[in-house]
Amino acid sequence: MQGELRIIGLPGIPEVLPSADLPALLMAAAQAQVGGFENGDVLVVTQKVVSKAESRLVDLTTVTPSPFAEELARNWNKDPRLVELVLRESRRTVRMDQGVIITETKHGFVCANSGIDQSNVPGDTVVSLLPEDPDASARGIRDAIKQRTGADVGVIVSDTFGRPWRMGNTDIALGVAGISPLLSYVGQDDPYGYRLRVSVSAIADELASAAELVMGKVSGVPAALVRGYEFTPSEGSARSLVRSAERDLFR
Amino acid sequence: MQGELRIIGLPGIPEVLPSADLPALLMAAAQAQVGGFENGDVLVVTQKVVSKAESRLVDLTTVTPSPFAEELARNWNKDPRLVELVLRESRRTVRMDQGVIITETKHGFVCANSGIDQSNVPGDTVVSLLPEDPDASARGIRDAIKQRTGADVGVIVSDTFGRPWRMGNTDIALGVAGISPLLSYVGQDDPYGYRLRVSVSAIADELASAAELVMGKVSGVPAALVRGYEFTPSEGSARSLVRSAERDLFR
Repeated sequence: MQGELRIIGLPGIPEVLPSADLPALLMAAAQAQVGGFENGDVLVVTQKVVSKAESRLVDLTTVTPSPFAEELARNWNKDPRLVELVLRESRRTVRMDQGVIITETKHGFVCANSGIDQSNVPGDTVVSLLPEDPDASARGIRDAIKQRTGADVGVIVSDTFGRPWRMGNTDIALGVAGISPLLSYVGQDDPYGYRLRVSVSAIADELASAAELVMGKVSGVPAALVRGYEFTPSEGSARSLVRSAERDLFR
Repeated sequence: MQGELRIIGLPGIPEVLPSADLPALLMAAAQAQVGGFENGDVLVVTQKVVSKAESRLVDLTTVTPSPFAEELARNWNKDPRLVELVLRESRRTVRMDQGVIITETKHGFVCANSGIDQSNVPGDTVVSLLPEDPDASARGIRDAIKQRTGADVGVIVSDTFGRPWRMGNTDIALGVAGISPLLSYVGQDDPYGYRLRVSVSAIADELASAAELVMGKVSGVPAALVRGYEFTPSEGSARSLVRSAERDLFR
């Protein structure tokens, strides 16, 4: 059983420039806020700063839309250059309606606009793409923290996704390192002796959502620390959060 | 900006019997764990104990399945009495496949088996139904705490739902009182001056997910306290988390 968690926002991270040393910025922020990382901490970092450090920003003025993107954009009153990028970053279109394009990204995530958005980036025409390999991004941050401070932390790269059926967005895990994103209770007994058969918690998504509560969208806090969450260290990968086509009733 | 949250599990709640004084049990647990509730706390209580206190348990041996339920159950190798209850508690069937029945409940929630399940209830043939009106359940707990301790707390009745596209379950808000479940950033500017147009966070779902991390499924901790989350008090209703048919691409 977990007793008590602390969810600690990490403010004071300066503008993240392409090829910034993001782990160093995160370590400085953790140092200032709580005296540094400890073994067993889970660090949640928003996709936005990871994408910036990995130079995954694109200026729309450099994008030439295809005729197909032009046509879609005309139908939905969208920027054809943005539509072009959304299509390029996608493997498949899941739904297009009401001005919303839901795609499956190259990684397998199903989300609006292939995860591309315009908020929290500098410049009127600049958008951010998702990291090429968010697990590798998480692993890079984890390894750097381990190497430079000795602390063994779990790392989650988070993003903000909408959901079918429910209003509002929640943060989810896009990349994971050092922690298994799923916690299975299958085969365990509840306190009444009932054997759980299907209970698996998406703890990486729940940790990302918990972190979002201290980050918000306008406060410039792109990372948070979860302290006190007990987990079994594991390589981990956010790919295990992606439901396979065979097990998905809503493709 | 939120600085730091504490997510505090409330163990020690005894078996909740029908027409138990659930607020009294929650108050005793909070007293033991943190000296009682404070203004601005958010109390998250699992659906299971709420349903028990509201006598929403059904013994399957008392259920007579309709011929239609019998047929569905035969096709999917399920208990016809359970299928009968799932249909009774639903307004509409969204998907039936792979032995899974996804329904829209009378409240409008889309979930597996109309939210009915067998875990964490006493007896081999007993299942729990969702509360009739989870907002009213939350309001009842909130009002009782206010009346008896003076503390003004937000209350969320939580449940564990699966999601399309992603593996694993997360906890969401089924009932809400004293806090608005959605936090809108629409019309606010990000730190770069970009005006947010669509950003709305489902904070009640994120709070429920955060609470799940200290509750788990086998540890007998049916409630948790979130302390330090700043919110504007509001009547609140989990109905505002239900996406209307017109705005839903995945009905």
